[in-house]
Amino acid sequence: MRLTAPESVVVAGASLLADPLRRQAVDVEEVQWQPPTGDPAALATVMADRRRAAANAHALEAMLGAEAQLVDVLPASEVLGLQPGEFLHAGPPIDWDRASGPLRGALIGASLFEGLAATPEEAERLLSGGDVSLAPCHSRGAVGPMAGVVSPSMWMFCLRDEANDASSYCSLNEGLGKVLRYGAYGDEVIDRLRWMTDVLGPLLQKAVRKQGTVDVKAIAGQMVQMGDEGHNRNRAGTLMFLREVLPALIDSGAPTRDVAEAARFVSGNDHFFLNLVMPACKLVTRAGAGIPGSSVVTVMSRNGTDFGIQVSGTGEEWFTAPANTPEGLFLGDYGPKDANPDIGDSAITETAGLGGLSMATAPAIVRFVGGSVPDALATTQRMYDITVGENPAFAIPVLEFRGAPTGVDVTAVVRSGVLPQINTGMAGRVAGTGQVGAGLVTPPMGCFTQALDALAAAVPS
Amino acid sequence: MRLTAPESVVVAGASLLADPLRRQAVDVEEVQWQPPTGDPAALATVMADRRRAAANAHALEAMLGAEAQLVDVLPASEVLGLQPGEFLHAGPPIDWDRASGPLRGALIGASLFEGLAATPEEAERLLSGGDVSLAPCHSRGAVGPMAGVVSPSMWMFCLRDEANDASSYCSLNEGLGKVLRYGAYGDEVIDRLRWMTDVLGPLLQKAVRKQGTVDVKAIAGQMVQMGDEGHNRNRAGTLMFLREVLPALIDSGAPTRDVAEAARFVSGNDHFFLNLVMPACKLVTRAGAGIPGSSVVTVMSRNGTDFGIQVSGTGEEWFTAPANTPEGLFLGDYGPKDANPDIGDSAITETAGLGGLSMATAPAIVRFVGGSVPDALATTQRMYDITVGENPAFAIPVLEFRGAPTGVDVTAVVRSGVLPQINTGMAGRVAGTGQVGAGLVTPPMGCFTQALDALAAAVPS
Repeated sequence: MRLTAPESVVVAGASLLADPLRRQAVDVEEVQWQPPTGDPAALATVMADRRRAAANAHALEAMLGAEAQLVDVLPASEVLGLQPGEFLHAGPPIDWDRASGPLRGALIGASLFEGLAATPEEAERLLSGGDVSLAPCHSRGAVGPMAGVVSPSMWMFCLRDEANDASSYCSLNEGLGKVLRYGAYGDEVIDRLRWMTDVLGPLLQKAVRKQGTVDVKAIAGQMVQMGDEGHNRNRAGTLMFLREVLPALIDSGAPTRDVAEAARFVSGNDHFFLNLVMPACKLVTRAGAGIPGSSVVTVMSRNGTDFGIQVSGTGEEWFTAPANTPEGLFLGDYGPKDANPDIGDSAITETAGLGGLSMATAPAIVRFVGGSVPDALATTQRMYDITVGENPAFAIPVLEFRGAPTGVDVTAVVRSGVLPQINTGMAGRVAGTGQVGAGLVTPPMGCFTQALDALAAAVPS
Repeated sequence: MRLTAPESVVVAGASLLADPLRRQAVDVEEVQWQPPTGDPAALATVMADRRRAAANAHALEAMLGAEAQLVDVLPASEVLGLQPGEFLHAGPPIDWDRASGPLRGALIGASLFEGLAATPEEAERLLSGGDVSLAPCHSRGAVGPMAGVVSPSMWMFCLRDEANDASSYCSLNEGLGKVLRYGAYGDEVIDRLRWMTDVLGPLLQKAVRKQGTVDVKAIAGQMVQMGDEGHNRNRAGTLMFLREVLPALIDSGAPTRDVAEAARFVSGNDHFFLNLVMPACKLVTRAGAGIPGSSVVTVMSRNGTDFGIQVSGTGEEWFTAPANTPEGLFLGDYGPKDANPDIGDSAITETAGLGGLSMATAPAIVRFVGGSVPDALATTQRMYDITVGENPAFAIPVLEFRGAPTGVDVTAVVRSGVLPQINTGMAGRVAGTGQVGAGLVTPPMGCFTQALDALAAAVPS
């Protein structure tokens, strides 16, 4: 055979094969490939499920059609009926014994905040005694960043998806550093929560009610054009939200001092909008949930101990495995040994196509989580391989306005070995520490292989 | 000779040569090249000027070191000593007879606004009679977008560069559509200007004075990381400016109704920050001005008839040629025949490395001016060929945080034939029309060849 063009060698998988060829000046094209993981029979069964293609198309369509309007701001006691001693938390179900440091810290802080205990020690006795109730935020249609602890007195953003007649909820963001969601519970944390309950929540309620609704999905679409991926960067989103409610806030009739303080608090916290993106993403994924035969992931979430996912075709069943620990950059003197395993409902952003899946749109944060700009572009490109579609509402300018990769497909993950990319904050392992860094992490493959087995078991014979 | 790698043909200039090679499956590398324009003797003289390298390095260093703090907001009468009947305008000097439609329209509007005339006809008689004074904004350290007309009662942003002990000024942005700077002068235009003078200006003055100063350069640096190139897109910049002055605005003691209206006006106008980026860029380029032997461009500006540039080594001398007409997209039913030639001092953004020179950072606007995302990236890459350095304060994320191409070099433009890329709004040709579109444009080469001649004449023998 005579080659009419310069030869090129295609190498799949291990780069051990590519390097010696390169040293011989051979043009090498590396293709990422791993042998499929999980049970081959389960994979074959699910892939052969005649419902799957239509079910996934249906899930995608519902996700793309979801709306997300901020309609009210209300205390959790009122809107979720949360009673004293009831707490919500991030991730799949867990009890005190298995809870990680940051989740314990946040529960201690919430107990102090609610007046259930006067000291951290007393709170710990209460919580370990089992006289309280712990439930995942997701079980109530809510989401919470990091520890994600919600107690009855906390005010919640209330979002509506009229197209699918669904609601979602998230607490108000406290800012960075020593904050409850990272497991801190010192006086500054509790004082801030009190001000948020006494002043900020009621003020935002007044503003939102005066303003009508705020289109959170539209703001999320714009922020993706402004370098925010909606998980670790929410700067433009926060500013646009502030712009939206500002005139109503000023006109609210509230004391000028409170209005100025609220404006200062919101505008001084680039992550304020995270707690609006998250429930908006919850509405997106919720719209795709519960479709028999669909292998689309509808929840990815972590409680600091376990990573849990839910899949459209298997409803609210959790598939869990031990959470990985993020790798990235650390604040101050903190290092890898200080980091708690992955925690928070914030991976709902990735589940809806934002966050790590849309890293390409946020090159400004890749250095903050320990990556490079080409990494960011490559990451999003790779995510198209494991998702069922693209969301034109979240158009990524640098990819020529291609929509965010949306709807992680369990079968694609298992077949390719490519895991969804999550970028995240890192909480200190020890209760009371707070944030120690930010970085990159993936879910454990075990969640997906378990989900695959359950999907296979649910295929009609 | 034996080739050890596949051969490749490098083709410079006309692609007529490249296409037949490509049809024969030859690997072709096209290099953009044009024969140098201008007087070869002048080019040789300037290139041989021993002062040039050091002078350009000095100019660049001064430009990179420039600061830009908003320190006050004041009426033009007060801060520029503008008297009744004195008007500033964009671009190089021009009189009424040669003024384009939009400049005439803006002057008519300013005359009505100042009460110098009761009707447009009366204003036109006044203006054509020669009893008024017209001078470029640049002659007073000011800049004005589009027609750039400043009259004594208009309030001005006052910026300071303490490092170079310099000041710059710009009026407040009116928003889009029927506005004075696009040559409209109807009642809505005049009413808006009155409100800006009676309410907005004094309010912003209160807020800025209460707040201390606002670091406009820092905001500009952040906006470049948020998809704004600072000329046709200032959305993130506007939001960050609003955030900065907001608490002071709320606390100003002004009536709540006025504060809410001002917040609504500023936040509803994505271009509000343009009038702060422009004077910040003026401070950048001013810092590099007046250095003997330097071939760096320090002003690019248009009055709607002529394009004019100034060059560091030749001080405040203008080099002018007929302005080109932008090509781009039109609003509503407007078309190319409705567009006025290029107008405005806003090309000061390009002169400082932003705007069209930093198109790569703003893929979201390329479609708005009629380009594609790869065009945007290629444009900025090309601009590095005609600039003397990069500004790390304006880091472009998608180019791996490379600084904006800064300091257009007259010799590089003349040698390469590559002109600075400007992106711009388009004013209607007929006075009173307003904005008709937005697009891309370049300066006429004649400005650069004239500047080259002047630089050559100034080389010590």
